[in-house]
Amino acid sequence: MVTAFGGGHGLAASLRALRRVTSRINAIVTVADNGGSSGRLRDEFACLPPGDLRRALAALCADDRVGRTWAEVLQARFGGEGELAGHAIGNLLIAGLWQELGDPVAGLDMVGELLGTRGRVLPMCLVPLDISAEVIGLDPLRPDETYTLTGQSTVAKTRAEVLTVHLEPENPAACPQAIEAIRDADYLVLGPGSWFTSVIPHLLVPEIADAIIESRAHKILTLNIAPADETDGFSPARHIEVLAEHEPRIRFDTILADRVFAGSDTHLVSYARNLGAELIEADMAARDGSARHDTLRLASAYAEIMGSVPH
Amino acid sequence: MVTAFGGGHGLAASLRALRRVTSRINAIVTVADNGGSSGRLRDEFACLPPGDLRRALAALCADDRVGRTWAEVLQARFGGEGELAGHAIGNLLIAGLWQELGDPVAGLDMVGELLGTRGRVLPMCLVPLDISAEVIGLDPLRPDETYTLTGQSTVAKTRAEVLTVHLEPENPAACPQAIEAIRDADYLVLGPGSWFTSVIPHLLVPEIADAIIESRAHKILTLNIAPADETDGFSPARHIEVLAEHEPRIRFDTILADRVFAGSDTHLVSYARNLGAELIEADMAARDGSARHDTLRLASAYAEIMGSVPH
Repeated sequence: MVTAFGGGHGLAASLRALRRVTSRINAIVTVADNGGSSGRLRDEFACLPPGDLRRALAALCADDRVGRTWAEVLQARFGGEGELAGHAIGNLLIAGLWQELGDPVAGLDMVGELLGTRGRVLPMCLVPLDISAEVIGLDPLRPDETYTLTGQSTVAKTRAEVLTVHLEPENPAACPQAIEAIRDADYLVLGPGSWFTSVIPHLLVPEIADAIIESRAHKILTLNIAPADETDGFSPARHIEVLAEHEPRIRFDTILADRVFAGSDTHLVSYARNLGAELIEADMAARDGSARHDTLRLASAYAEIMGSVPH
Repeated sequence: MVTAFGGGHGLAASLRALRRVTSRINAIVTVADNGGSSGRLRDEFACLPPGDLRRALAALCADDRVGRTWAEVLQARFGGEGELAGHAIGNLLIAGLWQELGDPVAGLDMVGELLGTRGRVLPMCLVPLDISAEVIGLDPLRPDETYTLTGQSTVAKTRAEVLTVHLEPENPAACPQAIEAIRDADYLVLGPGSWFTSVIPHLLVPEIADAIIESRAHKILTLNIAPADETDGFSPARHIEVLAEHEPRIRFDTILADRVFAGSDTHLVSYARNLGAELIEADMAARDGSARHDTLRLASAYAEIMGSVPH
């Protein structure tokens, strides 16, 4: 059993790779998105933001015509200029299931059945959260002044330097099934993804952080191919450092890094070792030159680490 | 194989009864609704109005927990006061499938698979239609003046006397699969339902009218339990008469009427005979006194007429 943590596109990439290695997958997804279709649904219904959960479900859809067609439909967005324009079709279905069933996990399980997913997609918490960040360098005239930014969509796009992130409300209760998924796992995979807004938030939920730390599973930290907006200019080692600053108890068995990004950083091996981890470097970048993982290359790296995980 | 024609609630009642008699069912549904959630989706996307199609699909859902849960969710409407409020969840899913697949029948088939429906639900035509009606008595000061009302939601609620209805555009092409469904049928069932806006419109699509008339299937006309707004004050015989005025070639084998409603009408047997039909009277009203069919009583009447239809 593999349990993977993340948010939107990074987690989906991880899941598309992991499903090629095993069918026993749980995905645990941040629930702090406040932009786009998810943000509109949060505003309208005070529900969890469904978008990242939908992406994770689509990434695990059955590898047949029916599963793929449903995944494409649920991922698609309404066009035009009207009241539905921009809403992902799957977000509306998930929000409807939540309204009717009153149970976020039951609703996601029904979409999972519809898609014939391998594995299960779970929210990190059962209440919508917000992310706030302490940043410096926001105002060029006051480069050392600290500012607080609120809202995942604002934090994720900032060009200021993020120092720390917080959840609002602080110390939320974890989704109980997410804790079970951590306890049942043979492998825990954190990242890739938006570092401050999709990866680190998992460590800010006390029960999740505790469960990860107490787990005897093999723990993998997968670094991004390149820094994104919110980690602009961060070296690979700095990614590890800020993660450990948010949860000093965290240890990993393996830190997986793209060879090109890792090659730029002479401190990386020692930073990895400080967290108990062996550094593994592999060529994992998408062939189109984008800062994304290539699914099969990432799958190959996971397969090598996991060796004989039951399929 | 039974093919049933109608619109919204009346067709759903017919389907809930027919599914107890056979699993080989096609439903052919009017596509002229312009009110509520369906009207909003027509306005936003120029798509078929999905509401009556959704009701028919839900009426045929699998008789298990998964089928019933999905049917309930798709029938439910978003609450609150926001941009989604009032939209049926299933309408949004169907509109999304149509946008992505570009094929109304393929989209409905996918919802049918999701619900595990017995049988298939088809639109009458592949383009949205409007209904207009010539009425008298609209203006109490000019009781003999003829007025034209446009829009199904307006016509269905009028207290004026409807003389004739028309489709706009006139003489639309039929959905090809609907024509096949008529040709494959052993039984054709027209009604119950809103007489001018859900039942008669099928006879205004030339290919559908021709296919019904040419069919050798046993043809059943199911009258309503009582007159609705648009047929306020109409006797059972008047229902038959206005139907035949819109398609003088129409003939039936059986006209099925509720005993109480039929009992009020001494002309009914001869009107039925004029259309070639045997009149069958049965107690079919819902036990709550509403003007709806009781599902099991209607099923029992269909079973008696159809005798040995394969289940």
